[in-house]
Amino acid sequence: MTRIRFQQSLDELKEKLLVMAGLAEQQIQRAIESYRARDLTICDLVDRSEQAINRMEREIDQAALDILAMEQPMAIDLRFILAVIKINSDVERVGDAAKSISDRVRVMEHMASIELPVDIPRMAALASNMVRRALQAFIEADAELARAVLSMDDAVDGINRAAHSALSALMAAESQHAPQALTALMVCRSLERVADHATNIAEDVIFWVQGADVRHQGSLNQN
Amino acid sequence: MTRIRFQQSLDELKEKLLVMAGLAEQQIQRAIESYRARDLTICDLVDRSEQAINRMEREIDQAALDILAMEQPMAIDLRFILAVIKINSDVERVGDAAKSISDRVRVMEHMASIELPVDIPRMAALASNMVRRALQAFIEADAELARAVLSMDDAVDGINRAAHSALSALMAAESQHAPQALTALMVCRSLERVADHATNIAEDVIFWVQGADVRHQGSLNQN
Repeated sequence: MTRIRFQQSLDELKEKLLVMAGLAEQQIQRAIESYRARDLTICDLVDRSEQAINRMEREIDQAALDILAMEQPMAIDLRFILAVIKINSDVERVGDAAKSISDRVRVMEHMASIELPVDIPRMAALASNMVRRALQAFIEADAELARAVLSMDDAVDGINRAAHSALSALMAAESQHAPQALTALMVCRSLERVADHATNIAEDVIFWVQGADVRHQGSLNQN
Repeated sequence: MTRIRFQQSLDELKEKLLVMAGLAEQQIQRAIESYRARDLTICDLVDRSEQAINRMEREIDQAALDILAMEQPMAIDLRFILAVIKINSDVERVGDAAKSISDRVRVMEHMASIELPVDIPRMAALASNMVRRALQAFIEADAELARAVLSMDDAVDGINRAAHSALSALMAAESQHAPQALTALMVCRSLERVADHATNIAEDVIFWVQGADVRHQGSLNQN
């Protein structure tokens, strides 16, 4: 394989991953829309696309493995392929989070629609934005942008904590609304997980671009 | 590097991963004991070991990368190293689940101790057993054992679903106990995640040993 052909195979790998990531991001939007509108036809759509994402994950892993086996890439290329394998796994789990939300919507059918003390669409927008920027950092090999994503995680954690305490209080005060509050709480947890996956992706981008492993440095610095 | 030296470096990689996995498994036991006994000194222990697991994850990734860069391993060895990288990530997330449980215990301090309709120690024992067997399958390169782990996941999911519905009902009926029920529910979710990670590890073992990717086949077969 020539160097040009090799570079093409890396580009194709990146392209496949971005298609899958776009689909995962769309899944989050769909899941939140299904929650907002209580629309089970959207849940069906989420289920179907989940299959497609799972299939893509396998194909990308196999393509990465083929390149490793045939090319024995060195240094920066090797780190790139490892980043793809890790990002692949996180993107698939973003899809899982969307599926979890959609599964929750399916059991909401018989619950009365009430106002809840949490802005789920806003939290979803923040988490999706983190995923989008982490992938943009990957496309542009931009470690600065990846670092900006890491700093966004605190905002999502903050909303999640506030939602947790407001919804717990609601459950205790108005037990007839406990099912709705619990559902909202589970949706928040799924969105918080999406933000965690975006964080993982950003860390993998930094690892790839700079060769430095930034994972858990925050927690190490605290000690 | 000779073949013998190469084989040694693979063995060392496996050994490091097993030490880390043993620690992650211990973390789950500790977290559940801290929940059962409401013992915050155990939570402190969980926090400290979490740092160690995070450090180990980085070291294992780096060691795997070094072998890939220096050795350009082929076929079965390459698949082994990729399995290590993936298992490494799942083991670290088992540690994260233990930390989540321990974080929940810290906010239980002011809640009255009550009986709840869920056997958390049993669920924890099942989930831990899955992790242990998945790692045993990895040590022994035993795809059969790994497949047995996959079939155990349904039991944990079943307990989690039953707990979810019993605890939701309790929240609605006895709102004064909503905080305890919600905490138990979050602990169950964390344990269900541990079982999911064990499933991922088992799938990676099968991928390594058989070269077949079994991920998501269950969901594909449903269509």
